[in-house]
Order: sequence, then structure tokens, then C-alpha cells
Amino acid sequence: MTAYAFSLPVRVYYQDTDAGGVVFHANYLSFLERARTEWLRHLGFDLREMAERHDVLFIVREANVRYRRPALLDDLLDVTVKVERLGRAQFTLGQDVLRSQEELVCASINVACVSCGSFKPLRLPQRLYASLATVLEHEDQPKEQV
Amino acid sequence: MTAYAFSLPVRVYYQDTDAGGVVFHANYLSFLERARTEWLRHLGFDLREMAERHDVLFIVREANVRYRRPALLDDLLDVTVKVERLGRAQFTLGQDVLRSQEELVCASINVACVSCGSFKPLRLPQRLYASLATVLEHEDQPKEQV
Amino acid sequence: MTAYAFSLPVRVYYQDTDAGGVVFHANYLSFLERARTEWLRHLGFDLREMAERHDVLFIVREANVRYRRPALLDDLLDVTVKVERLGRAQFTLGQDVLRSQEELVCASINVACVSCGSFKPLRLPQRLYASLATVLEHEDQPKEQV
Amino acid sequence: MTAYAFSLPVRVYYQDTDAGGVVFHANYLSFLERARTEWLRHLGFDLREMAERHDVLFIVREANVRYRRPALLDDLLDVTVKVERLGRAQFTLGQDVLRSQEELVCASINVACVSCGSFKPLRLPQRLYASLATVLEHEDQPKEQV
Repeated sequence: MTAYAFSLPVRVYYQDTDAGGVVFHANYLSFLERARTEWLRHLGFDLREMAERHDVLFIVREANVRYRRPALLDDLLDVTVKVERLGRAQFTLGQDVLRSQEELVCASINVACVSCGSFKPLRLPQRLYASLATVLEHEDQPKEQV
Repeated sequence: MTAYAFSLPVRVYYQDTDAGGVVFHANYLSFLERARTEWLRHLGFDLREMAERHDVLFIVREANVRYRRPALLDDLLDVTVKVERLGRAQFTLGQDVLRSQEELVCASINVACVSCGSFKPLRLPQRLYASLATVLEHEDQPKEQV
Repeated sequence: MTAYAFSLPVRVYYQDTDAGGVVFHANYLSFLERARTEWLRHLGFDLREMAERHDVLFIVREANVRYRRPALLDDLLDVTVKVERLGRAQFTLGQDVLRSQEELVCASINVACVSCGSFKPLRLPQRLYASLATVLEHEDQPKEQV
Repeated sequence: MTAYAFSLPVRVYYQDTDAGGVVFHANYLSFLERARTEWLRHLGFDLREMAERHDVLFIVREANVRYRRPALLDDLLDVTVKVERLGRAQFTLGQDVLRSQEELVCASINVACVSCGSFKPLRLPQRLYASLATVLEHEDQPKEQV
């Protein structure tokens, strides 16, 4: 696993399911958030440190999610993160939820930076922007070069 | 409030918020689900009865959500439901989360019917289809006729 | 309903249930928190105002919960709040989850006041202490006097 | 890590926290459930298989939880599982939530087996009972023998 093809394993517990016998649809957004958080940590950015030291909060501005197949109790899922678009104050990630290569859920998540207390928009911190630009550049390369 | 302009009040509790001080983004999908459920109940359809007697489960196939402004602890929100499109086996709802007329979140939710155990697609039950068709028709009317 | 016998109606949605077909056990604690919050509001105390103006946060120090019967999808529950013990810096509430008089869950919840940022223990605000003392006194009275 | 001293690492994400800046108290019960599930898997028991093949559902009958110190965003916690008492139809686990040896939450969780559809009490499956008895026996041994 490289920073250019990040994936977090997520196990499905009773707490994630509903009486329909499958993962409750809103809970996939929590799975996606876990993967984004670990991906950022992998890139060198801890969310608590971003908030406490740099007054930066990441907020979801848009979530577009397609549910193809349901995940079940005890499933071991992979949740991926890929940079789709990068702006100065926001970026869009492509995120999939997979079960052994099978795509269960695919999502596009737009994230922006805001100031912690005021929720005023902020530019991405320079170090983060540079890091995401590098990731995006490498994703664009043919796979054998990654 | 009529069936043609349904709205459910939802209070924000600590359980709905996160350390950013606002409602966690995935939890709005739970608010939307509460409103859809009460709207269906208002139209005469209880989800447990639909599952137990008619083997019908409603599943979310697609959720497109835009987050405009954050909701805060103790806010009293209104969550609306409106039929946007109606098909034989699925329908799309427009749902907003409002705080005193201010639009915080707007969403488009595509819902399909499946069989409980197998998750195989089902046509909407005839009575439900007729009911949604009536709602959709009235929504299309100018407001003064509603 | 008086302040001395508070009860909040809570509907069970898919989001509250798990693949066992019943409400997931941790979610009852969220139901209890909703009832405590509305009970405090009923007594004149809003949690956001307590935090923002008075730097007071309520934290759960101990939760003892007995699960007797499961709640199901679509159930309309009543969640009660009763003062059991009142101290200068903490209080204990008796809370039940009922379905038409039938006791599903009964809990004893010990709550303390702390300072928002530091989590240092605080005495209960005087007005709150007085209010809870009044509630407790009336609960102790024979029922016909309430 | 042996079966006799099981511990599951759990990371704290925004989804686990509330506007107080710490993990919402009900969410620790979800952390505890994740640890119990992985511990049972470690002992050879998968919950989905238990339900589907053996008609066995584990339900929480009692949860007694003491909250000592709050967990924060990005904390990496350890959630432990220990058998405290073993009966024919139920067992009690001691579970702690630790942050680098510091005890944040300690809980005692009583779990019973029931039949999936009917929720009627069941004896523990023989293989599970034997396994828990072995764990309990080894826990009682002085540490150097484990």
C-alpha cells in the first residue's frame, strides 16, 4: 500500500448493521471518514493537531454516494481513498468500499478547510496542498510507475 | 402540514455532534431517514409492517448531499420530504434540513424496494405507487391549490 | 406530565436497530441522553447555553443499565427521568425505557458537572441544584400530592 | 496477546466524539462490542455464523460502566476483554478502555445467548462454554504461568 493507493480495512460489527440485516446506509459515511483520517495520518497530518495547532477543521461540503451491494455482519471491507480534484480551499476524493475486489459502495466526497471556531473558509495549509498535489500527480501516472 | 409538504422537527443532541462543535455529517442521513419514515407512516405505510407482512424493504441506492451550513447543539431543525421522481421500482426524494427557513443541508435520495431476505429488486407495492403518484401530482400544482 | 415525572416519547427507526432485529444496546444510552436533555430544558436549562455562557458541561460518570426486553423497529417508546440522589457536584438519575407501561430497559445514570475545556469538576450551578432539589422533594411525596 | 488477555486497538475518530470535545459516552459501548466480537472470533466463534448456522444471538443483559477519564480525537485506545463469571446460559465480562496503561473506562458486561427469531434464552453452545471455561481457568492462574 502506498500513499497513492490508500486502503483501510474495516470490519462490520452489529453496531454498523440495521434490522434489514445489512450495514445501515449512513454508516458507510463513517467508514469513509475513518479511511480519510488514516490516509491523512499516513500523509503526515493528524486531525487533532490540525485543529489545535493550526486552527484547521476539515468539513464535508458534498457527499455523493452510490450503494451497489450491501455489506453484511462480519464482512471485512476495504475502504479506499483517491484524490480526484484539488483546489486551493477544497478537494474532492473518490472513495470506494470493497469486499474482496467487489465494489459495494462508491462515493465522491468534497472536503473543505475552515477555521475551527468560526467555520470561515481557509486555504489548505501549504504543506497539505503540496502533499495532495504529489498524490494526485502520481495517481495520474500509469500504474507501473507507481 | 400536508402529505404534499412533509416536515419532521428534529432536535440536535450531543450524540449528533462531533468535536468540531457541529452535527457530524453522516448523522444528517439519519435525520433524513427519520423524516422519510414518518412521512411514509403519514401516508399509511409502516416500515415494520412492510417488512413483516409484505416482505418489502426500502434501501437507499443513491444519496447526494450538499452541506451548506452546520447545525449546532440544541438546534431545532425541520427535515422535509418531497417526491422528485417516481419509477415502478424506485423513487427519488428531495430532502432538506432547515433551521427557521435557512437551508443547512439539501439532499436527493434514491430509494428502491427489495425483498427482505434476498435483496432482489421488487416493484413498489401498488398502493404505495398510487400514493406517491398522488403526492407527486399535487407537488406539481401551484402552491395556492395545495 | 410534570417536571416530577418526566417522559420523552422516542420512536425506533432502522438507524437504531441492528441485524439482530432489535435496538442495538448502546443506542438506548442515546435515547436516555435525549430524555435527560429535554428534561433539563423543561426545567429551564439548555445544554448549549450552559456550555457557552456558564462553562458547564455535564458528563456521565457511571451508567448501570439492565436490558429486560428488546425494542423493535417502529416501536414508540417512553423514556423517563427521575432524580435518585443529589450531591453538590453530581446527581444520579433513574431512567426507564417503556413500551406501553412495559419496562424494556432500566438505568441508573450518574452525571457530574465539569468545566468545558479543562474537564475539572464543578459544583452544580446554584439554580440547577435548587431545581433538582425541588424535583427530588416532590418525587419523595406520596403520589396524590404531586 | 493470548486469548487469556485479549485487547483490541481502537482509534478515536470525529464520528466517535461529541461537541464536548471527547468521545460520546454511549460510543464506548460500541468500542466494547467491537472488542468482544474480535475476542470471540479469536476464540473461533464468528457472530454471523453463530446466528445463521446455530440460531444463536448474543444479547447484552446488563452493562455497568464507569467513566474515569475522557478519550480524545486521534487517541489510540486498547479495549480489553476478560471473563469474570461463567454460567450455563450467560457470562460476565470485565472490559476496560485504556490509553497507554491509563484506565479511561471500566465496564462489566453480562451477555446471554438467545434464539435468533424468538429471543428465547438458550444454553451456551457446548464448544463456547468449554472455551470460556478454559479462558476463565487460565485467567485465574498467576501471570507467569500464562
